[in-house]
Parts: sequence; structure tokens; C-alpha cells
Amino acid sequence: MSNPETAIGIDFGGTSIKSGVISAGKIVHKASPIETAHFQDSNLLIDELVRRIEEMKAAFPAVAGVGIGLPGFVDSVNGIVHKLTNVPGWTEIPLTKIIEERTGLPAIIENDANAMAYAEFLYGAARGSRHAVCITLGTGVGGGLILDGRLFRGAQLAAGEPGHMSIDYQGKVGPYGNYGGLEEYVGNQQIAERAVQMYRENGISKSEDDCTPAILDQSAREGDPIARGLWDTLGDEIGACLANIVWLLNPDCIVIGGGVSKAGELLLVPIRRSLKSRTIKLLNQNLKVVIAEMGNDAGMMGCAGLVLEKVSQLPQK
Amino acid sequence: MSNPETAIGIDFGGTSIKSGVISAGKIVHKASPIETAHFQDSNLLIDELVRRIEEMKAAFPAVAGVGIGLPGFVDSVNGIVHKLTNVPGWTEIPLTKIIEERTGLPAIIENDANAMAYAEFLYGAARGSRHAVCITLGTGVGGGLILDGRLFRGAQLAAGEPGHMSIDYQGKVGPYGNYGGLEEYVGNQQIAERAVQMYRENGISKSEDDCTPAILDQSAREGDPIARGLWDTLGDEIGACLANIVWLLNPDCIVIGGGVSKAGELLLVPIRRSLKSRTIKLLNQNLKVVIAEMGNDAGMMGCAGLVLEKVSQLPQK
Repeated sequence: MSNPETAIGIDFGGTSIKSGVISAGKIVHKASPIETAHFQDSNLLIDELVRRIEEMKAAFPAVAGVGIGLPGFVDSVNGIVHKLTNVPGWTEIPLTKIIEERTGLPAIIENDANAMAYAEFLYGAARGSRHAVCITLGTGVGGGLILDGRLFRGAQLAAGEPGHMSIDYQGKVGPYGNYGGLEEYVGNQQIAERAVQMYRENGISKSEDDCTPAILDQSAREGDPIARGLWDTLGDEIGACLANIVWLLNPDCIVIGGGVSKAGELLLVPIRRSLKSRTIKLLNQNLKVVIAEMGNDAGMMGCAGLVLEKVSQLPQK
Repeated sequence: MSNPETAIGIDFGGTSIKSGVISAGKIVHKASPIETAHFQDSNLLIDELVRRIEEMKAAFPAVAGVGIGLPGFVDSVNGIVHKLTNVPGWTEIPLTKIIEERTGLPAIIENDANAMAYAEFLYGAARGSRHAVCITLGTGVGGGLILDGRLFRGAQLAAGEPGHMSIDYQGKVGPYGNYGGLEEYVGNQQIAERAVQMYRENGISKSEDDCTPAILDQSAREGDPIARGLWDTLGDEIGACLANIVWLLNPDCIVIGGGVSKAGELLLVPIRRSLKSRTIKLLNQNLKVVIAEMGNDAGMMGCAGLVLEKVSQLPQK
């Protein structure tokens, strides 16, 4: 039991719950997804989760624990789900205790952004680093920090929110009265609005639906100068935020994830340029800036990794 | 030897070197300062340091180690002084090894900003916190981070530079090609220049020498609206930088040190207001924002604390 390497990972999304068995860093089994909309009551959904865990435990007796990633405000230290984003009925649920009592397996819960960051650190793009900063670019801009080889959570377990870090202290107003938060510049919706505006200034009429990150990615690859210019601007702004993180934390790896990161080099090139121009060689010359590798399985795998870390630290039986 | 509590702390400044014996968090002996200008050669200065250490060790046999804080680029892990600011002749010196071999005592070296931050964490304004951010406001703006109860150094041991974090990604140009770095707004020289300008706009002629932080502090206390307005602006800008740190690290304590921090509440009130307006309650309601307490002894005491931490982790004899 001293080096457990098999665990169940569960990724609790707004619409469906994915789960599987991870062993030695590989997914060895994927269960069929659970549709959260089918369960109006959190108790019924927990019953279903327990049933799945029991099935996987029976099929994989080496399973040493259960890790659950959730979208929302989660107290990973005390094992309590305070509130979930987009899943009603989940407030103040002591989920770790419930799962441990009902399945007999050690469990952890973690917010999904932290779970994804930990997956990249253990198995993905930040493998081998010691101080990794993960930023996810999508509708919102989130993140997670691995410092000195461990997930860093902060005093209220709320660390790792680069999307609300300001790039301009007198800039655009954000949802929390904050000014110039990165998300107000590079969130999906903001990207679409800016693209529509830029096309309009060049006499081209487009709707926001014509300006998703995927379409702008395609347009830029086809040589559209407006789309290319927008990616350069986005990269410069993201790089400005990351430069602040670099001056503060001196990380050895930055992982860029989320839907917008599918732009790959279109985004990486201006991000790296911005970072280089805004920091010193000591800080940037050995800094890896890479696209996330773990994709949709990151949540599951990160949680499995976190529960294995917990199990390895439990007193041996 | 399992709980050593007495160590020598040495604070290597640009003009003089202070040293003393610290026991159970108190300074029990202060040696007379060494004037660095009297020693053109680093070898002669090291001879003098060793002599002082030997004297203190003889007078205080409980001394368990030597901690040395230095102003400049220091590799605290490998014990090498790469380069000192304002002290010529100190390049690539393996100081830890030299001191350990010549005195027989365990030693550590650390850069002075980190040493000061650690002193505030162990003995001063951040006592009892777990995640403390220290920022020093002076000619330059520096800092140090204590995360999860330990000094955080980063990949190249260069973490903790809030002065180069940007508050405006298109703002004032700094020394490293970076834009909008906090130091370009709130460093001593910048404060003086801004004050002269603000007085001029109000028809008052002042020189930069009339606008030191100490004089502006006094003027504001006497009701000068221009000085008061300037402190509010500085507090807002410092708060904007700290808000970014709060979103990223969710600390439980922020310590404001350095000469400019002598303004006390004049600076704390707008900093707290700025922080509150730029972050959420979860992050700011239990956050302590306080003025540094350790003053000129911080460097000595922090280094003593760091070497005692090292000694407590050595294999027992």
C-alpha cells in the first residue's frame, strides 16, 4: 500500500459527470457519463456516484481512492462543497465524508481548475517542472498554481485567479468592481466583440457568431490580417498578465489551456514575445510556455493524482 | 541540539555590515558595525566577518549557526554570492562554504529582501500568518513571499519582485523594457517628481529635495491637500498591484515596509480601500494589511531565523 498508483477520477461538469479508473498515469477504464440534469436532487446524484464508484472498485480491486473535481466553490481541506456553478441544489455538502463513509475509500474533492492544473503538472505539459502556472482561456479565464511541487491553494483556498488580475488599473470595469481584469480583454465574449468591432472599422460586417475563437483561428491561418492582428493583441495582453506572475513567482513553466488555447502557435508566439519584452532574461530564458496537453481528461486525471498523493501520506495500515 | 534557538545574524548593507546574536527571537547582542568601504578586497572583509563570528561564538556558546543577508543576486540554495549591489569585488563567491569551513558553524546566505520578509513572518507584523506577502517601498520597490509557511524563492531564486509588476501594461517604461511597473509610480524618486509636478500645477514651486517621502508625510499630517492627494494616489496604485497578488495567491497577510511605509495610516488607508475595491470579500475580509514592525533589525533577525530552520533540519549528531 506504500505506492498506490490506481484511483478513480471523477470530473463533475455543469451538464455531465465523467468518471474513470486511472492507473500509473493512464486511463484504464472510462465509465459512461452521468447526465446531471436527470438528477434534480443532490442525494439521488450522490447515490448514482456511489453506485459507479462501487462498480469500478469491484472491477479494479487495486483502486486506492476517489478524487472528485467540481466546478465551483469547494473547500478541499475540509471536504465541503460550498456551492456549484450551474448545478442547483449543491450547497454545503460534506462530500468527502459522504463518499468515504459510503464507499470505504479515501476521497478528496478539488475545484476543477486546480485539478486540471495538477494533471498538467503530473502527467501533461508541465511534467518535470517544479513551479507551474496554469491559465485556462475560455468564457472565463481561470487558473491553478503548482509551487514547490505542490498544488498551492492560498488562505481561503481561492488562489489562482489570473482572469481577475488587472493589466490596466484604470481599464475596463469587471464584475467585482475590479478594473482591467484580463478576462475583460480576452474572454470568449470579449474576443468576439472586439473582432466584430475591428472588422467593422475595416468596412467588413460580421456578427459575434462569425467571430468565435475557432473561426478567428481559421481566418488567421488563411491569412486574414484582421484576425492575425487580433491574435497578436490577445497574446500581448495575456503576456502582460503572465509577466506580472513571472516577476512575482519566477515559475519554470506556464501552461496555456482552455478552448482559446486551441489557436496554438498563433497565440503562443505573441505571448512569448510579450513575456520576453516585459521581463528579464534570468526570468524568461529557461521558462517553458506551452499549450496544455491533457484536454478533456485533465479533471479526472488530476483528481486521481491528488487522491493518490493523499493516500500515500496516510498512516500505513 | 534538536531545537536550537540561538544564531548569529549578519546584515550586509551597501555601506556597513551589522551583526548580532539572536536568541529565542530577541537580539541579545549587537556587534559594532563594519564599514564596508574600509575593505576594498572581499578576502579581507571575509577575514573580518570570520573574526566577528568567532568572537560572538566564544561569547555565546549556544550559537548554532550563521545567517547572512546580502543586497544583490544571491544563490541561497548553493550558497554563492553572484553579485552585490553597490559593493565592488563580490562576484561568484561561495560564501556559505567559506564561512562554514572557517567557523565550523552551519551557515546560510539569503538576499536581504527575503531575509526581511522572513523576519516579519517569524517575529514581526506577519507573525501567525501562513501566506505572507511583503513589499518594501523605498528607492526601489522590492519584496518577499512566505507561502505555506516557507520562504518562496522560485525557479531561479528570483521570485518576489512586485516593483516590476505592471499596473498598466501600456504605462510608463521601466528599466527592463517593461511597462507600467509599480516602481515607476511609487519609487522615492518618482514620488518626488510627481509631488513637484502637482505643486507646480497648483502654482507652488518646490524642488525634489522638498518632496521626500518624510516631508510629504509631515505636510499631509499638517493638512496640505496636495500631499494628502498624492498619498491617496500612491495608495491606490500600490493597492492595484497588491490586488493582483491577492487574486493570484490569496494571502492572509500583506506587510508594507521600507522608508515610504513610515507614512503609516496615510498610506494604509488608501491601500486598504484600493484592495477592497479591486478584490472580492472572500479574499479581502480576513486579509491583514499592516506596516512592517522589525525596522532595521529585520535583515539580521530573518537570517538568524533561516539558519535556525536549516540547523533544525540537519541530521542530528
